[in-house]
Formats: sequence, C-alpha cells, structure tokens
Amino acid sequence: METETSIKIRGYHIDHFGHVNHARYIEFLEEARWAYMETNNLIALFHQTGIIHVVAGISVKYKRSARAGDVIIIKTHLEKAEPVGFTMSQDIFLGNILILEARITNVFIDINNQKAIAPSTALISGWPDLCNSYKKERTNNG
Amino acid sequence: METETSIKIRGYHIDHFGHVNHARYIEFLEEARWAYMETNNLIALFHQTGIIHVVAGISVKYKRSARAGDVIIIKTHLEKAEPVGFTMSQDIFLGNILILEARITNVFIDINNQKAIAPSTALISGWPDLCNSYKKERTNNG
Amino acid sequence: METETSIKIRGYHIDHFGHVNHARYIEFLEEARWAYMETNNLIALFHQTGIIHVVAGISVKYKRSARAGDVIIIKTHLEKAEPVGFTMSQDIFLGNILILEARITNVFIDINNQKAIAPSTALISGWPDLCNSYKKERTNNG
Amino acid sequence: METETSIKIRGYHIDHFGHVNHARYIEFLEEARWAYMETNNLIALFHQTGIIHVVAGISVKYKRSARAGDVIIIKTHLEKAEPVGFTMSQDIFLGNILILEARITNVFIDINNQKAIAPSTALISGWPDLCNSYKKERTNNG
Repeated sequence: METETSIKIRGYHIDHFGHVNHARYIEFLEEARWAYMETNNLIALFHQTGIIHVVAGISVKYKRSARAGDVIIIKTHLEKAEPVGFTMSQDIFLGNILILEARITNVFIDINNQKAIAPSTALISGWPDLCNSYKKERTNNG
Repeated sequence: METETSIKIRGYHIDHFGHVNHARYIEFLEEARWAYMETNNLIALFHQTGIIHVVAGISVKYKRSARAGDVIIIKTHLEKAEPVGFTMSQDIFLGNILILEARITNVFIDINNQKAIAPSTALISGWPDLCNSYKKERTNNG
Repeated sequence: METETSIKIRGYHIDHFGHVNHARYIEFLEEARWAYMETNNLIALFHQTGIIHVVAGISVKYKRSARAGDVIIIKTHLEKAEPVGFTMSQDIFLGNILILEARITNVFIDINNQKAIAPSTALISGWPDLCNSYKKERTNNG
Repeated sequence: METETSIKIRGYHIDHFGHVNHARYIEFLEEARWAYMETNNLIALFHQTGIIHVVAGISVKYKRSARAGDVIIIKTHLEKAEPVGFTMSQDIFLGNILILEARITNVFIDINNQKAIAPSTALISGWPDLCNSYKKERTNNG
C-alpha cells in the first residue's frame, strides 16, 4: 500500500538560496522508501527470503522548492514490478502542490552470491503490491 | 572544456553494505559541476550577466559500486544547450570502468525576477561549449 | 521545558562499521534543538525580538553506538543562561542506556549589526527556562 | 607529522545564513584526519596490528565563519598519546585567521574482541608522533 511520510524542513536542510539541497532530497526519498518497506512489513520479508535490493537508477524532476518551516509530504508507492527488480514512484507535495517527482529503479540481489535474481514466490506472495503488479503485467501481455 | 575531478572515497562516504551512499554521489556530482564552472570561468560570468541556473532534473544510473580507498574520476561536460537551459553529462570512472552515468538538466533564471530566461549574448559568447552547442543545433535544424 | 525527540536509525545513517556517523549525530542534535525551540515557541520570539543565536561551541561524548533499526531518544534542555548566550544540554538514549552526551554553547546575536548582545527583557520573559536560569544565577551570586 | 588539508567551500556546504553548516565541519575534520593517517602511513599499520580506533569525544570551538568560495586549511596533528587512545588537535584557518579549533579523542580498539586496548609496540614504533608523545609523558612523569 502507498505510504505518506511527512518531513519538516529545517534550517540545516537549506542552502544559501533558501532551497532544499539536491542531495538532501535524495535522503528524504530514501527515508520515505524505508517507511514504505516498514509499513508493508518488507524488511523482515527481505531478510527471510535472502533477497535484498539495490538502487540501479534514480530520476528526479524538481518542480518547486520548499523552504525552512515547510512540511512536505512524500507519497511512495510501487510503480511497476520488473523481471529482476521493481520501480518505486515518489511524489513530494507541499500542500496540494506537487514539488518533486521521482522514479527509483531497484534490482533484486541474491544475498549469497551478490547477483541479480528474479524474486522468489515467498517474496512475491509476501508483498501484495508486487504480486498485483506481476498479475497485471501477465494480463496485459497475454 | 570537459573537466576531470578526482575524489578519494573515505569511510564516512560508505554505508553499511560498504557502498557509497546515493545522496553522497549527488554531492560528488555537484562538486564536479562546480569544478567545471570554475575551470571554464563561468562563476564570474554568471555573476556579471545576472543569470543563474537551477537544477530542474537529475537522472542517474548506478552500474558498479566504489569502496573506501578507491579514487573515482568524474568527467563533466556540457551535453546540450537548450532554449532556456542546458544539460550536463557526468560519468564516474573507477580506473577504466564506468561506474555511474548522470544527466543533469538546468534552467537559466533571471536573478532579478527569478523567472526562466534565454541566455544573453554575453553569456553565450563567454561560454564556448554553450556557444558551440547552439551552433550545432542551428546547423542540424536548418 | 525539556523536549524529547525520537529518531529511527536508517541504513543511510550508518557507516561501514555499522555505527551512526559522527556528522550525522550532529544533525540529529540540531534537529532536536529545533524541536525544543518549536515546542517552547521560541522561533517566533527570536524573530520578534530581532535576536538570533549561533553555535559557538560543541562538546560531544560518544559512549555507545546505535545501529540501523534502533530508535533513539534525544532529551534536550537549557543547561544554563549566560551573559550573552546560553548552553543547551542534550543526551541521547537507546532505551534506558545513555549513549551520547552533548553540550552546545550558543551566543545571542543582534540581527541588525551581527554582533553579540545580551538578551532583551522581551526575550527573557518569553523563554521561561532562560528566565529561571538567570534568576538562579542571581540567587547563587547574591 | 602535522598535515595540512585544503578544502574549497561550495554552495552546497552553506546554510541559509551563508555559513558552513556544523555537521559539514565535522566531515571536513574527518576528511583531514584521514589525510593525516594516509600521509603518516597509518592505515596499513592499523590493519597489520589489528588495532582500530574510534572517536570517543569531540570538542569544537567555532570562532569565525567561512563562506562559499573560501579555501580553508585544516592543520591536523597528534596532540597527546593516552594509555588506551590518543587526542588529535585540528585547527582550521582562513588565510592567517583561526576560524575553528577542535580536539578529537580516540580510543584504541582490539579488532578481535572489540574492546579498548593499549597500543602494541608495533603500533607505537610505526607511528613516530605517538612514540614521541609517550616518551615525553614518561619524561614528565619520571
């Protein structure tokens, strides 16, 4: 399920133009993906199945800037399951205004040999969003 | 002209998997773009022309990981001039191996009214890479 | 009044030894001081009185380390009012265990001339912890 | 031997007041200690002797601020050898002006049992600054 993470912008998040620094947004997005994993009980699932995931690509569009004192909301959901990985979609809102869009591509890695791997049945069945996305793919393709 | 920036990976750049953290790479890329701007005498030029630039989009592909003790080389060049901005290309190498590819899209901003603006003649003529890219575009299109 | 700020330790807070990085603790402490300032309605007060504060000294003792998944609690209170500044005390706990002790010395600055200044009556009366600390000093000294 | 590390202050090191952020200074100091360890050939020595060191305390006095475009010089030397650790002294200069003073206390740790340990003869003899400091202590005490 999609999660929402709120973060209050502090003075130390801000650069000399009064904008949140780019690297800091990458951390905010990472914080929000951890929250998604926790809420969806995936941290234990990854541990049990011996499959981890690493980020293979990041694409970010900056639309508006946030300032000190603002509270931003990061909405995080699974965009799409892929043969050996998945893409997360993350949108940051300030009130109703979309200020940042991100797509994060991840690859599943077998923790034993550190190589890319297709997700096991246990992993798919324990992560409903992933399972539904694979079903949808199959339907579209067949 | 393309610039090369070398950075030695330290323990505090590294996460618990022994990899350089994503947000840290974004900072390394930013450091390398500042070095490009300096080497090409653009910091004074932006100041004189009253035009600044802000990042509008970042796209990063992570191919390999670097570890503590490694020295990475960041090659930075202007990829393409655009009507009201420009795209930088940045590749990170570990020896001969390409470990990260990035494209950073920037928008020119008039410092007086904070709005997007086409670059002035003074800015174009003071930045040979930008000037050449506009010429190439014109040739291709006409 | 003393405030408590809880932070969940994430993978990206952790270095290659599995410990929270030193610079990251400094950020956690800063986050907790912002929370103190907010809870005690001091951000508006500083703004109204034209007095800001800058950090002049930091002293930190690291006693134990926190790991990914831990939730740390940062307790923040005013340690002592001083003629032109104040010292904050911050202790970080993991459960009942004190893992870090910090003292942060701040100087009041007149926002108009950027020089150190004694706090105005308005600032003292709007910040009960500060007011009480000055009273205690006077009693001890007189 | 004392080492000098120069760092150019960039826009992304700076907060909204135009000052280098506190957490960023802690990173600059860490970078400079790594440079000291490298220049004095201590990274291999720690590895060979199975002794590592962890930071137990940090004390920093901020005297002046640096701004974007400044080049700071960090002078790093061993302040004092201690029974199971050592203290580093680090001063940051902007030209001739001392802008920051730091003392960093470290504890030697046996890598096998993760406990504090006195340095071995091999470690002392491979680190001349440490060796000289122990000699001086002995002379003063005896």
